[in-house]
Order: sequence, then C-alpha cells, then structure tokens
Amino acid sequence: MRLTDAVVTTASIRSPIRNAVVGFDEMTVSVVALITDHVRNGERLTGYGFTSNGRYAVTGPLKERFVPRLLHAEPDELLASDGSNFDPERAWQVMMRAEKPGGHGDRAHAVGVLDMALWDLVAKVEGRPLYRVLADRYRGGTADERVFVYAAGGYYAPGKDVAALQDECQSYIDMGFTTVKMKIGGEPLPVDLRRIEGVLAILDRPDQLAVDANARYGREEAREVAAALQPYGLRWYEEPVDPLDYHGLSAVAAEYEGALATGENLFSARDVENLLRFGGLRPDRDILQFDLALSYGVVEYVRILAVLDELGWDRRRCIPHGGHQAAIHAAAGLGLGGNEIYPGVFEPFGLLPDESAVVDGYVRPTEAPGIGFEQIDQLYAVLREAAHS
Amino acid sequence: MRLTDAVVTTASIRSPIRNAVVGFDEMTVSVVALITDHVRNGERLTGYGFTSNGRYAVTGPLKERFVPRLLHAEPDELLASDGSNFDPERAWQVMMRAEKPGGHGDRAHAVGVLDMALWDLVAKVEGRPLYRVLADRYRGGTADERVFVYAAGGYYAPGKDVAALQDECQSYIDMGFTTVKMKIGGEPLPVDLRRIEGVLAILDRPDQLAVDANARYGREEAREVAAALQPYGLRWYEEPVDPLDYHGLSAVAAEYEGALATGENLFSARDVENLLRFGGLRPDRDILQFDLALSYGVVEYVRILAVLDELGWDRRRCIPHGGHQAAIHAAAGLGLGGNEIYPGVFEPFGLLPDESAVVDGYVRPTEAPGIGFEQIDQLYAVLREAAHS
Repeated sequence: MRLTDAVVTTASIRSPIRNAVVGFDEMTVSVVALITDHVRNGERLTGYGFTSNGRYAVTGPLKERFVPRLLHAEPDELLASDGSNFDPERAWQVMMRAEKPGGHGDRAHAVGVLDMALWDLVAKVEGRPLYRVLADRYRGGTADERVFVYAAGGYYAPGKDVAALQDECQSYIDMGFTTVKMKIGGEPLPVDLRRIEGVLAILDRPDQLAVDANARYGREEAREVAAALQPYGLRWYEEPVDPLDYHGLSAVAAEYEGALATGENLFSARDVENLLRFGGLRPDRDILQFDLALSYGVVEYVRILAVLDELGWDRRRCIPHGGHQAAIHAAAGLGLGGNEIYPGVFEPFGLLPDESAVVDGYVRPTEAPGIGFEQIDQLYAVLREAAHS
Repeated sequence: MRLTDAVVTTASIRSPIRNAVVGFDEMTVSVVALITDHVRNGERLTGYGFTSNGRYAVTGPLKERFVPRLLHAEPDELLASDGSNFDPERAWQVMMRAEKPGGHGDRAHAVGVLDMALWDLVAKVEGRPLYRVLADRYRGGTADERVFVYAAGGYYAPGKDVAALQDECQSYIDMGFTTVKMKIGGEPLPVDLRRIEGVLAILDRPDQLAVDANARYGREEAREVAAALQPYGLRWYEEPVDPLDYHGLSAVAAEYEGALATGENLFSARDVENLLRFGGLRPDRDILQFDLALSYGVVEYVRILAVLDELGWDRRRCIPHGGHQAAIHAAAGLGLGGNEIYPGVFEPFGLLPDESAVVDGYVRPTEAPGIGFEQIDQLYAVLREAAHS
C-alpha cells in the first residue's frame, strides 16, 4: 500500500463578512487529495483534507516541501509496522524532516491538511469512522456518541443592523443550536453592547451567547471591555488580546470572572504550553480553541492534549475553531468539549452532513468510513473535482 | 514613483553540512527584485532582498498574498507623505492587510524579504547606504562605523574530525575574526567536549568560542550539558532547548552562569516579549539572535527593539542570525551588538563585500547606495539574473 499521487488545489471561501480585525474577501483554503494504489469499489482509495478558514491556502509549503517528502519517502516509512495501514505519526516525522523548530505558522497548516487526508485514509482502510479509530488509538476505545456544537456567526456586514443580527441568531436556535457566538470589537463598545443586548433579548439565558473580539483590543481596552461584559454573564469572552499576548491575557483573566476563550491562532504544542503556563487562564472555566487542521493535525493535537494533562487541564475545556467534520471526529474520538460550526458561512467546507442533525446543541459524527466527507454532497463534489484536476 | 513589477525566484543553498537537528541538503532561499518606474543611470531602480538560511523559500506566501497586495496597492499607499520615497512602514501595513494575528512562521519570512527589498530601494532613492538611512530614521542620526562579527561554522560533516574542525576555526581567526562558533548536540556529549577542547586549543581565550545546540536537547539534557560546559568559560551556549520552551530555558538560565543565546527561531515582537518575560534570560549577559530577514523585516525589528527598551534590555545584546548585508546595515544603523557571518557557507548570500575586510573581529558596512549587494559580484550576478528572469 502506497501513495501514488497527491493533488493540491486552492478553493475560494471569499465572503463579504468581517470580524473586528480582518475581512474574508480574499480568503482561500488548500484542498488536498492523497491517492493510493489501494483499490476499493473499483476506485483508488483517496484521502481528503482541507485547511480551516482564516489563514489562507498554503500551496507553496505543500508543493515545495511537505507533499514531495511524502511522495519521495520509502513506502514503508509511511506505514504501520505490520504494513496494514498508513501511520500518520510516522508520516508526520517524514514531513517534518529538515524543518527547524519554532515558527509555527503556514507550515503548521500545510502539515495539518495532509494529516487530515492521512487520517481519512487510515479510517477508510479500516472501513470505520475516524472517531472510532481515534478513540481506539488514543482513548482506550471510549468514544463520545455526540458532540456539543455552537453556531459561530454574528459577523459584521454592510447594512446589518441589530434586527438582522437577532434574526440570524434566532435562525441558529431554530436549527437546534443552544449556544451562539457573535463578533465584537468592530464597532465602538456602546454599539457592541446594544448588539449584545439585542441578541440576549431573543435567548432564554445569557450563557447561550459567546462574544469574540478576534484580538482586536489592546491591553487596557480589553480590560475595559471585560468590565463592561461582566454583568451580562455571557458564555465566554473570546480573544480579548493578541493570541500571543500572555501578559495582557493574564491581566484580563485576573479581573474578569466569566470564562475566557482563546487559542485558534496558536498552532503547536509548544505555544499551547506557553499559553497555559503564562497566560493566566483558569482550568475551571476557560475554553481552549486550538484548531487541529491549522496546527499540524491530529498528531500534534494529541501532543497538545498531553500538555493539558501535564498542566492539570481537562480536555473537555477544548472546543476547537474550524467547523469541519475532522474536528467533529476528533472531538468525539478524543473526548473534547465540543466544536465550532459556522452555519451558512465558508460553504461547502463548513457544512454538516445533515443540517437538521443539530439536536439540543449536539451532533453525531458520521458513521461512514473515514471522515465522511462523501456524506456531504456539495463538499464531496469539490473534493472529488480537486482529486481529478 | 511606483512599483512596476516584482520578480520572485528561488535559489538553492544546498550544502552537505548538518547541525544537531537538520541537514541543509534541500535548503532554499527566496530572492525578490522589486522594480520601479524610477530610472537612474539608464536603468529602472530595483530593490533586492532574499530570505535567510534555515527556513526555506516562501514562494507561495510571496506570490499568493504579499506581492499582489504590494502591486495592487494604490501607489501613494506605499510612499512617504511627501511622495519622495517609498515608506516600508506603510508598505508593511499594506502587506499585512487581512492577515490574522499569531502564527509567525513562513509569513514572517515572506514579509521580511519584501521589507529588505523596500529598504534597499529607499536607500538607493536617497543615494545613501542603508545604515545611515536607518540611523537617521530610528536613532537620531547616530550610526556605528563598524560592526562586531563572528564566524559561525563548526558544522558536522561526513568524515570531519577534530583536526579538520581546528583547521576550519583557525582559518576564521586568520581571516580576522576574533570569535568563532561551532555546533554541538549532533554527537554524544563526550565527543562534543573533545571537539570543544580541540578548538579551545587553537584559541587564545575560551570566550572566543561559542557553541550552538540548535535546540537539540530536551530539558534535562540541556541542563546536564550546561553543567558540563560551565567550567570552560565559553562566549555563549546557544539554543539549549526548543526556541519556544521558555520554561525549559528558565531552568537552564537558573543554573548556567555563562551567557546563553537564543532567538533565531522567533519571528515577531510578540514572541520576543514572551521570551524576555518568561524565558529566564538575564539582561546583563545573554544574547538575542532575532533575524530581521526572517522576522517581518526592519519594520518589525524596530518594534522588537521597543520591546527590549520596555523590558530593560540593551539593544547591544542583539547579535542577529543570518549573515547577510542587510543585517550588517541594521546593526550599524540601529546600534545592535553585532552580526553572524558564515564564511564559505550559504554562498553567495552570506558573502561580505571584501573577505579581507574583517579586522580585529569587526567589519564596516558598505558606503554604496542601498544595502550594497551590487558590491558583491557573485551575489549581484544572482540577484540581477533573478530580476531579469
């Protein structure tokens, strides 16, 4: 069993939405198809992966470094010791050969998309859904049957008023979500507070609403906003400061009694360790949002969970960024606290297999072999086209 | 005055050398030529830049994000307010549009190479060497007339014994260097200690020798090696642990009385702040090696120096990684502590304008307009070919 080819393409996920820091009008993702010599149902077994939203396609690192290292490896360097399946941990070592430590940016996304495609292959070879494969390998066989999800939206858009924001959030509740997230930091604080109050008016409880500042604030402003948010009792206050500003985050955490959330812009176990050691976060309440597709994939994510264990954090505190099926499987298989979903945004990459499947704020992972991209028609059409391009 | 074109090419700097962690047999750099409509001496004024060694070419980020943003900007978005010259600080804002915070890896190298080419242009438009332009802009006009440099070598190579290592280091002393650096961590400690003792035998003083572990050691081993190195009184002990392992570095710094050095694998002011706040380094002795070509360029380096000021560090503690002329100009213009040079390695990118110019461990920056790449025949041939490719 060996890889015979890897197809790398770029797909646009451009959108007129904005958070407080960036627009998404140029946004792209990398799509990868890893093709094997293993034939099943008359077709070569193929693993698919794509990068998460927010950080752009990584064509260069994929085509110039990581794909060639995979394809030029001796076939058994990528396989489990009995040769019966691919081994993403061994493939990870091959991909990261001759890479210096540190600098966890675009490179982490490139390895992440290949890791996703490799795990899709591993689970397809086993003929089982990925979450069960991950549970067997990393959690003694215990898998969660359902995964908490929340609806991330509430972006800024031209002409979007509080009523439109309320309608949007109501639509998420109507879909079956129990928790919604909206952006803040893109307008002056009094405007954002009116937006928050507008959404709270349509919810049963204030802890059904999280707010996301996307690292827009400086240190002092982040503390002022924290003080203004405190009385609302929101679910969490996300990325108040720069993702690497552990000193500033500590200052916010020392004063804000509610939950903080961060981590979607940290891409390695080393960075996670620094966040947990120096960022002042509190294991009894704060939320960690590392996105495995952007962070060297499942292999590195397992190392991240080991850091959490070492530093006294429960992995249920992890609710990853990204909104893709691979993260649903990782959440169910590794026992995380949930996953982000972006209804109607970043399609088809953020689609669920069945939009009606959100029940009381939870979804079930697909039972199809692999990650189950094939269960999402609109997404599979894009992936399949990529594989044959 | 405007940019009319940007040429991006890749050059190999492959070499059979190894440090303790990576080989350089696939190593590449990105070369950029920014071409303007400004004609001087019958040619369009062109700015050149290239990435530093160790992190590979960044073709994808350059071609897909940063070069298009520069070329699609309104011309005056890249110019100083009086329109008389390019303004790299304004260009930096243009390049980083729609980029999320955090994730300072390949992206930092791509912006760094464009920043280098922009500063080459700025100094050429002024008709002055870059170090004087930087001194005027950022240091009240005070420039250093000469820059401390040390010879970085002592790599592992097949068949290279202690005698060959001694010959290599003696050749650096003969060139005019006073300080040499060698690799450790690629052999068992007793072997490395014999290599160190071999080099010390040809030097006058032990503080003429620095050793570089390239983040090879785990935490415990790094401390054991520190204890073994302590009696020698070496110039510094570089990258004992992973560049982001601030907890581990603190443990080494708490025990090792000599100087530590690190930072070549940190690429942003945010990462620098974390290193200085949490890494246990000591402002009275330790060395900081941030490489501006890999770290978003001079514009971000100035922010790094502001972090040093805020946290009580003298900028003379900075001796950058990289070994390129842009860093010589930055050292002289911004008042750093020196620069790394790799004699005979990574040519032509690491060449000095005149190899005989090292006197008592110091070089003078070139007085030619710009960075002075045109003064290095072998390098300029590569850059010029790139610009016309």
